[in-house]
Amino acid sequence: MLEHGGNLLQAAAKYGRPVNDWLDLSTGINPQHYPIPALTSSLFQRLPAMDDGLQAAARAYYDAPSILACAGSQAALQVLPILRPACRVAMPRTMYQEHAHAWQRAGHDVHFFDQHPDNHTLNTTDVLLVCNPNNPTGQQYPVELLLAWHAQLAARGGWLVVDEAFMDTTPQASLASHSGQSGLWVLRSLGKFFGLAGLRVGFLLGEPTVLAQVESLLGPWTIAGPSRHIAQIALQDTQWQQHMREHLPAQSSQLAQLLRQNRLNPVGGTDLFHYVQHPASRQLQDALAKQGIWTRYFESPQALRFGLPPVTDWSWLEQALAHIRIND
Amino acid sequence: MLEHGGNLLQAAAKYGRPVNDWLDLSTGINPQHYPIPALTSSLFQRLPAMDDGLQAAARAYYDAPSILACAGSQAALQVLPILRPACRVAMPRTMYQEHAHAWQRAGHDVHFFDQHPDNHTLNTTDVLLVCNPNNPTGQQYPVELLLAWHAQLAARGGWLVVDEAFMDTTPQASLASHSGQSGLWVLRSLGKFFGLAGLRVGFLLGEPTVLAQVESLLGPWTIAGPSRHIAQIALQDTQWQQHMREHLPAQSSQLAQLLRQNRLNPVGGTDLFHYVQHPASRQLQDALAKQGIWTRYFESPQALRFGLPPVTDWSWLEQALAHIRIND
Repeated sequence: MLEHGGNLLQAAAKYGRPVNDWLDLSTGINPQHYPIPALTSSLFQRLPAMDDGLQAAARAYYDAPSILACAGSQAALQVLPILRPACRVAMPRTMYQEHAHAWQRAGHDVHFFDQHPDNHTLNTTDVLLVCNPNNPTGQQYPVELLLAWHAQLAARGGWLVVDEAFMDTTPQASLASHSGQSGLWVLRSLGKFFGLAGLRVGFLLGEPTVLAQVESLLGPWTIAGPSRHIAQIALQDTQWQQHMREHLPAQSSQLAQLLRQNRLNPVGGTDLFHYVQHPASRQLQDALAKQGIWTRYFESPQALRFGLPPVTDWSWLEQALAHIRIND
Repeated sequence: MLEHGGNLLQAAAKYGRPVNDWLDLSTGINPQHYPIPALTSSLFQRLPAMDDGLQAAARAYYDAPSILACAGSQAALQVLPILRPACRVAMPRTMYQEHAHAWQRAGHDVHFFDQHPDNHTLNTTDVLLVCNPNNPTGQQYPVELLLAWHAQLAARGGWLVVDEAFMDTTPQASLASHSGQSGLWVLRSLGKFFGLAGLRVGFLLGEPTVLAQVESLLGPWTIAGPSRHIAQIALQDTQWQQHMREHLPAQSSQLAQLLRQNRLNPVGGTDLFHYVQHPASRQLQDALAKQGIWTRYFESPQALRFGLPPVTDWSWLEQALAHIRIND
């Protein structure tokens, strides 16, 4: 398994600190998750019904006509590579690693670029894949640019795949409403903005006929009944969503400011995390871990990702950062 | 999607009766499900940890060394057909239909037999698949017979696949403790005995090296965090399990007796359902549905499956059966 944030059990074992006594900033998950509603026992007992309203709620929330609910966007990113014969795939070098892993495992030829693909790449690749905004760099791709890339690819049977796991605070930058076109795939997730990574609910947005094939391939009942119920309610709660679209950017600005005050200048980020390149990132991760703060380390380039702390834990992070000596 | 029991939303719509006002006997799910423990919010928020103890609990419960947790036994039955190049597969004609569907979709040549495969089938098939006990017929296959079939198949690279979804009240009849051998697969589920079909937790038992490949193919985080937690507790609760191993057979006997009293003689069954062949099965299903009782209809041969009613709903079933006029 690839390394990920959220591997707190391992950190707890390594540093000998109980798992409940950590400030876990290693993920980009909203620390103030959507409140869990009451769950009736039938949600646990019965097979989930496919016509329970979840997909309709998702179509409305994402403003997308053609949507397939799946067990996290992980399930979506794993199925796409098996829909095409071996081909040429291009994606940013620094990106959520599961994409490259899935395409390579399925026998595709994966190439990497820095930030933007050049013309040669656009003319020779069959599948162009980006995270927008990118995880962990925060790089953003404008809608017009992505649509131009998609047009260029689709003209010769190619695909543009956009992972929008961190898009929810900026719906105007989403390609969701453009999905349904041939050769355009959009991945969404309830893990980050809604803070419900444990549900394992995500969505694949794409061309209806191909989406029907994917549904048949994934088979029935891939999502737990309680997860479907909670997801449906969360997707319909526009008041909570609106509050978070104001709250999270404010928290993110506060985090960027705190990092800068401690000479850790983020080179990028989103409303849910900041990305700090630093030559001593491993030592920084270790020094913070010794104070019970777990961050996500990236080796190449040397960097740390800081997620948002819960509103009650800012002082923990402030004091920890003040105590570490950063060689720069 | 294939037709299944549990499609109560459709029945409710067809018969104009609110979904909460049905006695649903259409599944083989234990109506007295394992009680749902308290769930902390972190189970919903965090990515599920793969080393949370679920697999260890499953190894102990199934008495099997090599186990992979997956999103219901449905996920397990869907992955097996893609592990082999197109081959010859044999299974009982009357059986849980998702198996044939999955193997056929993956391009395999599926043959059917009645109850037992003949020698020609055993000598020519690459994959032999049975449900033990069978759903819906209740047919049982003794351990010694299955092990002999497995030996015959494995000697030439073949597989025996045994779906033990309804095995939990009779662990002595399970092949679980024999799994780990080359060419032997066992599927288990928390849906039926534990009554937790909504969790989407099942297990694939098999040869460790191939199981590791399956794990890589299915990818990380296929099961929801709360589901993993509940499953682990249920698998460890030997007291509840022991109670159910006495309670369910008693309930099942009571159901068989009631059906016989109403001239509906079960031709087979398990501790969780009975299988009644009757030429007027469709009319019977309809007559019961008009009294709010939903059963599972099978077309060929004409039959109904009756699951156990909750202990508080026996009189509902008794009165409904007494009111219908059965032409035989």
